[in-house]
Amino acid sequence: MARHVLPPPVQNLIDEFARLPGIGPKSAARLTFYLLRAANDQALELADALQALKEKTQLCGLCFNITEVDPCLICAADDRNQELLCVVEEPLDVVAIERSQVYDGLYHVLHGAISPVEGIGPEDLKIAELVARLDHGDFREVIIATNATLEGDSTTLYLQRRLAGREGIRLTRLARGLSVGGDLEYTDAITLGRALENRQAL
Amino acid sequence: MARHVLPPPVQNLIDEFARLPGIGPKSAARLTFYLLRAANDQALELADALQALKEKTQLCGLCFNITEVDPCLICAADDRNQELLCVVEEPLDVVAIERSQVYDGLYHVLHGAISPVEGIGPEDLKIAELVARLDHGDFREVIIATNATLEGDSTTLYLQRRLAGREGIRLTRLARGLSVGGDLEYTDAITLGRALENRQAL
Repeated sequence: MARHVLPPPVQNLIDEFARLPGIGPKSAARLTFYLLRAANDQALELADALQALKEKTQLCGLCFNITEVDPCLICAADDRNQELLCVVEEPLDVVAIERSQVYDGLYHVLHGAISPVEGIGPEDLKIAELVARLDHGDFREVIIATNATLEGDSTTLYLQRRLAGREGIRLTRLARGLSVGGDLEYTDAITLGRALENRQAL
Repeated sequence: MARHVLPPPVQNLIDEFARLPGIGPKSAARLTFYLLRAANDQALELADALQALKEKTQLCGLCFNITEVDPCLICAADDRNQELLCVVEEPLDVVAIERSQVYDGLYHVLHGAISPVEGIGPEDLKIAELVARLDHGDFREVIIATNATLEGDSTTLYLQRRLAGREGIRLTRLARGLSVGGDLEYTDAITLGRALENRQAL
């Protein structure tokens, strides 16, 4: 008997959604049938946005952040501190740091962190490019702003060794401590230990 | 100072993802940056699938299920019981019932359920089309297979009144083997099969 299977265009979109991280087959089906019922242009607007993502963006040749123009707006700005470089894992980290409105220097995006488990080594990251940038730039401080994870810490350790002994360049990393607004009793023991070790004079 | 904002194509895709149900701004950003780093064609394959969804699918003119050809493969099949009609809320419900392998009749997809809260009345559903189909068809039984929810029950009650008193047409509904409050598409195939076999006269 002719049993009903989903039409290929429908099943195909479900499969494509299910390839995305954090979206299982059920969510993928829900999204697909939502779009089937949604106003006619929503699926096409999403399709256009996906095409534009690849066609209209590139990596900045200097800092490797995502950008429409090369060099990116931050690298090209003349009102930012050219002697200060902040090294981050991902483009979203740049967004987070900009949001803090505390930093006015330049960035360098590694596009990942060292992870032996996932087979990601220093050569897979934009580290050679970072070294070349330091060779040719006038930087006086490099802030290594990786995540406070095992992989982030490994990357910091590696960069610390690789970049050590450069004349006139100070290496720093983000402070570890209590999150602002956080309760002492809900702070995990390791963070609290670090906050105690790094206690600051009042 | 020139603060970094995301390039418009990136922000635009985040916004489009965030319009989808169950995807918040954080997930939308994660998906976008995942696609930025993924193999070059994954974003384009998703874009193509989205375009094909609207271009290559339509509603069957008889049963209003999603289909590539009109009439759909089920309505066109000559090895299915032409005297049996199963009324469901959504296309995904057809998939669920087919999966139970118990049913060999035809379908009618309402595209929703009556919900005064959401302002969905009988005129917003494919109910007039259902009545017309019964007027011109040779159906001997109509199985009302709405979800076991308040809206599904309201729809069943409405259809029961609207379709009552038709010569030679038996009205049934799915047995209450369904868990109350449960969605049809999440019901396992065996339970759904039993519910079909034990369908009750209205």
